[in-house]
Amino acid sequence: MNMKAEFINPFLDSTISVVATMASVQPVAGKPYIKKESAVVGDVSAVVGITGEAEGSLCLTFTESCILHIVSKMFNESKTEIDEEVKDAVGELTNMISGASRRALEGIGHHFQGAIPSIISGHNHEVRHVTKGPILSIPFSTEAGSFTVEVCFK
Amino acid sequence: MNMKAEFINPFLDSTISVVATMASVQPVAGKPYIKKESAVVGDVSAVVGITGEAEGSLCLTFTESCILHIVSKMFNESKTEIDEEVKDAVGELTNMISGASRRALEGIGHHFQGAIPSIISGHNHEVRHVTKGPILSIPFSTEAGSFTVEVCFK
Repeated sequence: MNMKAEFINPFLDSTISVVATMASVQPVAGKPYIKKESAVVGDVSAVVGITGEAEGSLCLTFTESCILHIVSKMFNESKTEIDEEVKDAVGELTNMISGASRRALEGIGHHFQGAIPSIISGHNHEVRHVTKGPILSIPFSTEAGSFTVEVCFK
Repeated sequence: MNMKAEFINPFLDSTISVVATMASVQPVAGKPYIKKESAVVGDVSAVVGITGEAEGSLCLTFTESCILHIVSKMFNESKTEIDEEVKDAVGELTNMISGASRRALEGIGHHFQGAIPSIISGHNHEVRHVTKGPILSIPFSTEAGSFTVEVCFK
């Protein structure tokens, strides 16, 4: 399917609002862009399958410094490594962003289901989307580093 | 949802049949088991979200030696590193295993949709399923190493 412009804001707005609400961190969105290459690299990622109107996937990829900052603020304690608690927190954030994005899409008439997220950890791992379609990439920055939200459909 | 015994064979049989057909490699299934800890470690993984009757995910995780062997046999050329061609092949195998498993489940009255797969690479990365439910883990061995198929539902 085409990556319509109206698909961008639900993911962008939900990401900002969930991270701001849960962690009191205000992510700054860079310019969303459509990319053809399918890979993104990071230290912790979350992947959620999407089905319904179209099959796709939502992927959040964090640098280590960025996610440690977000989770430290979330729990009001200093996290210094990507431990189980941090991975659980990424799962929780992802479920909320996935849910909020789909609710926003429902509001404009698009119906999707979300699968359960998988959390990937390992320094400089790569996540590649198996699609021939375009991939929407939204870069975010925080005072402690960057993360990326990618959305792709078949 | 409960991980019913009848869910095991569709994934087990489809994995063997796709790998045998596509790569002329005969994987040997170990005893499937239900695990509570949510993580699996490998060098290349594929994750596919599942929705429908229940939300879940299917995850294939390969050691490097195992996937290089499978893809070398698939293309009849010696692959010595996890390059783009290998990752694409993992995506193709995963789409086929996901599709064949869901068709087999349909045959016994269970209806699921599959999202598009994500391929993860990076030595010793970890994939963690965000679920409180049990995780079905099926270990496979080949003459060149092991891989694991995991299925979880909410």
